[in-house]
Amino acid sequence: MILCDIGNTTFHFLINGKEKKYFLNEKLPSFNQRVYYISVNDSGTKNLKYSNDDVIDLENHLEFKTKYKGMGLDRKIACIANKDAIIVDAGSAITVDIMKKGKHKGGFILPGFKAIKDLYPNTSHKLQFDFNPKVNLDKIPLCTQDAISYAILKSIIQPIKNIRNKQQIIFTGGDGEFLSKYFKNSIYKKDLIFENMKRIIDANNCIA
Amino acid sequence: MILCDIGNTTFHFLINGKEKKYFLNEKLPSFNQRVYYISVNDSGTKNLKYSNDDVIDLENHLEFKTKYKGMGLDRKIACIANKDAIIVDAGSAITVDIMKKGKHKGGFILPGFKAIKDLYPNTSHKLQFDFNPKVNLDKIPLCTQDAISYAILKSIIQPIKNIRNKQQIIFTGGDGEFLSKYFKNSIYKKDLIFENMKRIIDANNCIA
Repeated sequence: MILCDIGNTTFHFLINGKEKKYFLNEKLPSFNQRVYYISVNDSGTKNLKYSNDDVIDLENHLEFKTKYKGMGLDRKIACIANKDAIIVDAGSAITVDIMKKGKHKGGFILPGFKAIKDLYPNTSHKLQFDFNPKVNLDKIPLCTQDAISYAILKSIIQPIKNIRNKQQIIFTGGDGEFLSKYFKNSIYKKDLIFENMKRIIDANNCIA
Repeated sequence: MILCDIGNTTFHFLINGKEKKYFLNEKLPSFNQRVYYISVNDSGTKNLKYSNDDVIDLENHLEFKTKYKGMGLDRKIACIANKDAIIVDAGSAITVDIMKKGKHKGGFILPGFKAIKDLYPNTSHKLQFDFNPKVNLDKIPLCTQDAISYAILKSIIQPIKNIRNKQQIIFTGGDGEFLSKYFKNSIYKKDLIFENMKRIIDANNCIA
């Protein structure tokens, strides 16, 4: 089985269980197998279809109801199959979504961890710092390195804790594993998107 | 009385009660009055001294004890005379300091409000948005504009609320007035730095 998550910079493939990335403008091989994909980038979709005939857009088979307007496809895919949980996708931005009794209740979008870190030295040369992942979050900082490290972590952690109501928190994305360590009853699912793409296929016999 | 706060881009004067700004490389007038100043920029200090002979550096008369290493002069000046309060200077960065029983207990540094806002469209064109200052912070957002506005405000408000213990919060700086509206028992002091510079002068008869 071949799965493909088309983002704005790369094709992210899962080819018979193995991950493989290609840049969007790269020439793709012909896989001689059906490719199930989701895409947020039209020229990426075009590129995939140019080299492969047997492709299926899973967005057409996704059933996800929400009152949220403008929710990205990746976010929807990350949320399905989680009946009561907070889903956090920590990438270039950090999306936080709430599922309750099988329904999507809304969400919010924090800046990405790296983007926030890079802000400080760009604001002032006096705010150059090395991030301290071991900063004590229960003590008010007493030096610049800790003052910034503490503030970055608190600015991400507190808004999530603030809406939490004992639910499990499911982390995914590049910084998901790191951030999950600051929350009790949380797990990190590296392949949440691929897992849920498989769920959509399994639920739709006609395309399996 | 003439007060001057020398930052990294401007001279901020209070000349007999009236504010006046000059750029750091601008030619300053000779005021023919004593100028009390604080400075975080050496070439600014040099420029002031070039056009004015009677100048007094208030840093030499500042008594501020703290275990915090690398605390900026502006932050120290903002904190003095506040025995039990949280002092928030919301400018290009947002500094948060805790004073308790007359002692500085530490602090942290959040990114500036404008800097965080500008991060989103730079991360993805899909995160273009107009900030909604009226977003309901007690409801999970249901559209992108609110999802971002909510997250920005929560990422600033929650870390401050998290360390608060019923103390008053004193806001200053360009975004201070706006942010103060999200906190009970808070006040905005536009001229906190100048007020406290006057306090240092009053406490030191020899220079008054």
